[in-house]
Amino acid sequence: MAVAPWPAPYRFQRMNADHAPGQERTEVPSGLRHVDFSHGDVTAFTPPPEVIDAVTAALRDGGRYAYSPYRGHAFVREIVAQRLSAFTGAPIDPASELIITPGTQGGLFLALSSLVERGDKVAVVAPDYFANRKIVEYLEATPVAVELDYRTTAGEPARLDLDALRSAFADGARLLVFSNPNNPTGAVYTPDDIESIAALAAEFDAFVVVDQLYSRQIFDQRPFTHLRAKAAERCLTLIGPSKTESVSGCRVGVAIAPPAIVDRMEQLQGVVSLRAAGYMQAALEPWFAESEGWLDQRIADHARIRDDLHSVFTASDAVSTRLTEGGSYLFLDVPAAKGRVDEFVARLRTEAAVTVTRGPEFGDFPESVRLNFSQDHQAAVDAAHRIVQVAERL
Amino acid sequence: MAVAPWPAPYRFQRMNADHAPGQERTEVPSGLRHVDFSHGDVTAFTPPPEVIDAVTAALRDGGRYAYSPYRGHAFVREIVAQRLSAFTGAPIDPASELIITPGTQGGLFLALSSLVERGDKVAVVAPDYFANRKIVEYLEATPVAVELDYRTTAGEPARLDLDALRSAFADGARLLVFSNPNNPTGAVYTPDDIESIAALAAEFDAFVVVDQLYSRQIFDQRPFTHLRAKAAERCLTLIGPSKTESVSGCRVGVAIAPPAIVDRMEQLQGVVSLRAAGYMQAALEPWFAESEGWLDQRIADHARIRDDLHSVFTASDAVSTRLTEGGSYLFLDVPAAKGRVDEFVARLRTEAAVTVTRGPEFGDFPESVRLNFSQDHQAAVDAAHRIVQVAERL
Repeated sequence: MAVAPWPAPYRFQRMNADHAPGQERTEVPSGLRHVDFSHGDVTAFTPPPEVIDAVTAALRDGGRYAYSPYRGHAFVREIVAQRLSAFTGAPIDPASELIITPGTQGGLFLALSSLVERGDKVAVVAPDYFANRKIVEYLEATPVAVELDYRTTAGEPARLDLDALRSAFADGARLLVFSNPNNPTGAVYTPDDIESIAALAAEFDAFVVVDQLYSRQIFDQRPFTHLRAKAAERCLTLIGPSKTESVSGCRVGVAIAPPAIVDRMEQLQGVVSLRAAGYMQAALEPWFAESEGWLDQRIADHARIRDDLHSVFTASDAVSTRLTEGGSYLFLDVPAAKGRVDEFVARLRTEAAVTVTRGPEFGDFPESVRLNFSQDHQAAVDAAHRIVQVAERL
Repeated sequence: MAVAPWPAPYRFQRMNADHAPGQERTEVPSGLRHVDFSHGDVTAFTPPPEVIDAVTAALRDGGRYAYSPYRGHAFVREIVAQRLSAFTGAPIDPASELIITPGTQGGLFLALSSLVERGDKVAVVAPDYFANRKIVEYLEATPVAVELDYRTTAGEPARLDLDALRSAFADGARLLVFSNPNNPTGAVYTPDDIESIAALAAEFDAFVVVDQLYSRQIFDQRPFTHLRAKAAERCLTLIGPSKTESVSGCRVGVAIAPPAIVDRMEQLQGVVSLRAAGYMQAALEPWFAESEGWLDQRIADHARIRDDLHSVFTASDAVSTRLTEGGSYLFLDVPAAKGRVDEFVARLRTEAAVTVTRGPEFGDFPESVRLNFSQDHQAAVDAAHRIVQVAERL
């Protein structure tokens, strides 16, 4: 008897995970230095040395670190809660309001799984991180797109479509999920928009999940408003050292939320993966306590790469982009790629030795690609020139 | 306006995760050495030194390890697939048939999520690992209990109720999930029972998930049959270095399955937590290649603890237990605890400084508790005497 192909559960069909960013397996040409813009280069920007030392010490220490409560070691949560209270501008109880997760991705999955019921409507910003929409679909809920207008005149802030958010809430959505700084555009929400999101959530008794993974890396002294400083009792904040700090290889993140939600996330963590790796939780001990000047230097280095890429891209008529305000992402419009962005992405690999993430992952963006410019500076600039050449040939 | 308590999704109500083994937070008395039998003691039995060295080297190496495909580093999968092919007696393609997961728990969650549709019936052995049933419930499917008769005359093997398994399959279940060696009883399935499971799965075109987390730690030269050697095309094997090898703190495990199932698990991993921590995947490099005699010594050490605990427990009329055949679990019957096992567990903590896992987590076992005896030998024996004293006072 032939073995039947066990059918994929309905959840999988909804998720539409055919494209897995960062999972491309085609060959790039030899002779060119491959630049993988799908994530940061942790060789170009290494983790703070204190992190490697802390995890190494935890491995040697042994028993103290191997097992933790599902929500993470109490002694690590205490350190982190204090620093994140100061950073976000609202107090955090380390015992009840904070959970350590297997990366911020792990926190996002636990958060949405803890809040979204099958059949729910969920307001999802567009463009935004692809997993927001995929997880909502996986949970058999319906994403309702709320647009972020990011294609503004140079110097003008991006604006969330607050009327659309109001309509989504009025239409029954009880949850909004978004990232700030925005992934993929690098836009930072204005203080006004954050205040409006908090006010609308209160008006409609809604809850908000905000991914602030890149909120330590804000350029040009731009003001950054933490949603939880305005609406702590109805928001969940995701943050972690995977991006600016280059600690993605440790898979540790943090979620801050009201106790009832943290309890639920911990219950689910108990069956999903038990806990973030016990030894790796030590990577959070030096977080927000890096050596003097470390963060400023890292931000300055990234601002210079941003400026150089922006110059390369604005010099060509074949592409356009917004100047990144926070984080390491840049969302590139390539009008000639419209309707054939997969061809453009494939040609970038085979002709330019460049890997990027396709725009349609982030919503209805058929002519865009995302770059993470946390790369070797010169290699990134060289690759940007090659991207422009492919775009011009398109 | 008061903030509404956002209701828990229906999935959570079904999971019934009020008791979280290993998460107890009450105080134990001072003056006694606390023995936490809810998991192994990695200070008493440390990871192989090669593991700590490999992870430390990966942390120092940096870029090569930080990011991997969601299914894990290709160079690690190649090493592991070769050794697990030899161990399990059936070939494994490292590219398509193996995925590295955040612990074996992560593999179990991905596996069941990839195979179970809402409304399905799933055959679940009783007693067996609590997360099997919880995840099935979380996925809004219905567990159908298939009993393992483990309360046999000394020396007689435990036997699965194969008639009940046939009935479950005949009644529509397309999936069986079980652990071998059995968690919590330490019973090892006979070669006959494994053959019968494979034959029934083939007859009913069903799939089988088998958790072999403890399959390297078999006592008394007992034969161990790998299901995948009999039914590779319709089974998924979970294994990892978290138990015998004391590497739980790294959160790495492995699942071996047909390519279509591995693909689906990787898709889900891409939204659940992206990947097992990149650096930690190095912990698998020395796996199955520990120094000469290391595994034999570890098995012998555990056999001696097992024998001593078994002597303590068989000397009392207040408790009884089966002699563990594989793994580090022992399932203790305490007739006086029937209907008040929570009181017994609480008194073990407050009167005997002992933490155990309550029997009802594993099915309908209202008078049982589970012990993981991978502990300091003398501390475990002393604690066993205190357990008997509390049982006799009950």
